[in-house]
Amino acid sequence: MEKQPIRVAYLGPEASFTHLASDGMFHGEWLVPHATIPEAIEAVSEGRADYAVVPIENALEGAVSLTVDYLYHEAELYIAAEILSPIEQNLMMHPSQADGWEQVESIHSHPQALAQCHKYLHYRFRGVPLVEMTSTSGAARFVSENPDRRIAAIGNRFAAEKYGLSVVQDNIHDFHFNRTRFVVLSKTEGALGVPGGSTKPKTTLMINLPKDNRSGALHQVLSVFTWRRLNLSKIESRPLKTGLGDYFFILDVDESMEVPMMRGALEELAALGCIVKSLGTYHTYEKKPAPRVIS
Amino acid sequence: MEKQPIRVAYLGPEASFTHLASDGMFHGEWLVPHATIPEAIEAVSEGRADYAVVPIENALEGAVSLTVDYLYHEAELYIAAEILSPIEQNLMMHPSQADGWEQVESIHSHPQALAQCHKYLHYRFRGVPLVEMTSTSGAARFVSENPDRRIAAIGNRFAAEKYGLSVVQDNIHDFHFNRTRFVVLSKTEGALGVPGGSTKPKTTLMINLPKDNRSGALHQVLSVFTWRRLNLSKIESRPLKTGLGDYFFILDVDESMEVPMMRGALEELAALGCIVKSLGTYHTYEKKPAPRVIS
Repeated sequence: MEKQPIRVAYLGPEASFTHLASDGMFHGEWLVPHATIPEAIEAVSEGRADYAVVPIENALEGAVSLTVDYLYHEAELYIAAEILSPIEQNLMMHPSQADGWEQVESIHSHPQALAQCHKYLHYRFRGVPLVEMTSTSGAARFVSENPDRRIAAIGNRFAAEKYGLSVVQDNIHDFHFNRTRFVVLSKTEGALGVPGGSTKPKTTLMINLPKDNRSGALHQVLSVFTWRRLNLSKIESRPLKTGLGDYFFILDVDESMEVPMMRGALEELAALGCIVKSLGTYHTYEKKPAPRVIS
Repeated sequence: MEKQPIRVAYLGPEASFTHLASDGMFHGEWLVPHATIPEAIEAVSEGRADYAVVPIENALEGAVSLTVDYLYHEAELYIAAEILSPIEQNLMMHPSQADGWEQVESIHSHPQALAQCHKYLHYRFRGVPLVEMTSTSGAARFVSENPDRRIAAIGNRFAAEKYGLSVVQDNIHDFHFNRTRFVVLSKTEGALGVPGGSTKPKTTLMINLPKDNRSGALHQVLSVFTWRRLNLSKIESRPLKTGLGDYFFILDVDESMEVPMMRGALEELAALGCIVKSLGTYHTYEKKPAPRVIS
């Protein structure tokens, strides 16, 4: 019997940044685009996929609240891995128009991608109309379908390849440290073991503080980690959706759930009256920036 | 000489929820809509307005990151007051069509307002096309301009009044605890003293932790408040935009900057190496839900 391919549900469309991140980890497997984050997550919950890949945090924008809230309120899934991916934007045109790229007539992309290249566009193409599209890969497809027009799309290299476009200017995004964290979600707990992961494991906890005196409670929660020298690489709050001022907290701890110090910390959190949801222990896979392409 | 009206820049368009909140506090003054949050804030920074009113937090969605980030990174303004406002959505139609409201052909509103009435629309109007508009008041205007069509808008009462529509179903939003916090921003520090404010003052601080060992530092910061029994009604993190995992924190303390305990806390935060930006001490103005209207 042949080996079944792994089924991966990702936030689409095809050639999106999530697709790019998914392809890096699951190249050659069965990758299926989903229109929304909840749909990709539900594909795993309902057993139609083995893993879901969705964005969870961006260096500029912060938490992807749809993912965080869905994992807290709706889904019972675990993080099997995280993928750190640079967000690189490129200016791409139909090959037959590429020579005249400096006289481009309009530039098409997702509003967020246009915003990420705001300074570049301001200095290089001031006055050129910017046309908002529903996705960067949709913009690339639109450009490929209009070879007679001198128009450009902004998006990732993957989209340029997929739609046969030439990258006429690469890495045009303003902030070169911009990265997105994607999580690989699974129905079963356990770190995905593929080559290239971080040696140090990481654990994500979602903590609901006891209702009385929440600010003192957060201080106690941090004490539980601090005196054990358990390092928190992240702490972020999200509204509980029960009223203004009610939050839950997402903590990333640089340690495995299996070590005695972590087990002790979790026991104490329960004793303090916290409700703790562990999303599991996993490794980080860091995608290196792509080599520069000469158009 | 006549008294000059107070100039208030608010996040528009007219009859938006921010307009409604602004009108409650500055009724009869000179209220000017601005297309974006940064534009409303800049109107105060540049002296074209005395106050700006913008949303800062919603009970369901969390921080309005554009406001929080702009106050941290760009503006040097203070909070003069906060307004707590219930988010109430209503179904409204042209008076000549109101009798046939149950056979409405399409429902128009901002995507967020449609989402806030998701369950209502699902159970009451399943199958009726939902049309996304750029604002709730824009939807109300559209309905008023098409009196011959049996269409409805979803929005606040203010928009119904402004565009002469009949409220055919009131309070159709799914979550009845949903509220938004608006801040009144000023160039000078000092609480706005108008009738109806909270007796207990509140202070908002934005804190950048020292770079070494941020998780231990957050624990120390909370200790500074906890041992003094200074209650934090809010703690929220936002990315510093310098890289993944770098955050600043927004703390609301239920106390005035002027009391000795707060002065001591701020001195200690500085000694710990924190960079603290105070947005000032102010009072809360809570808007009561509107009385029900019979259409």
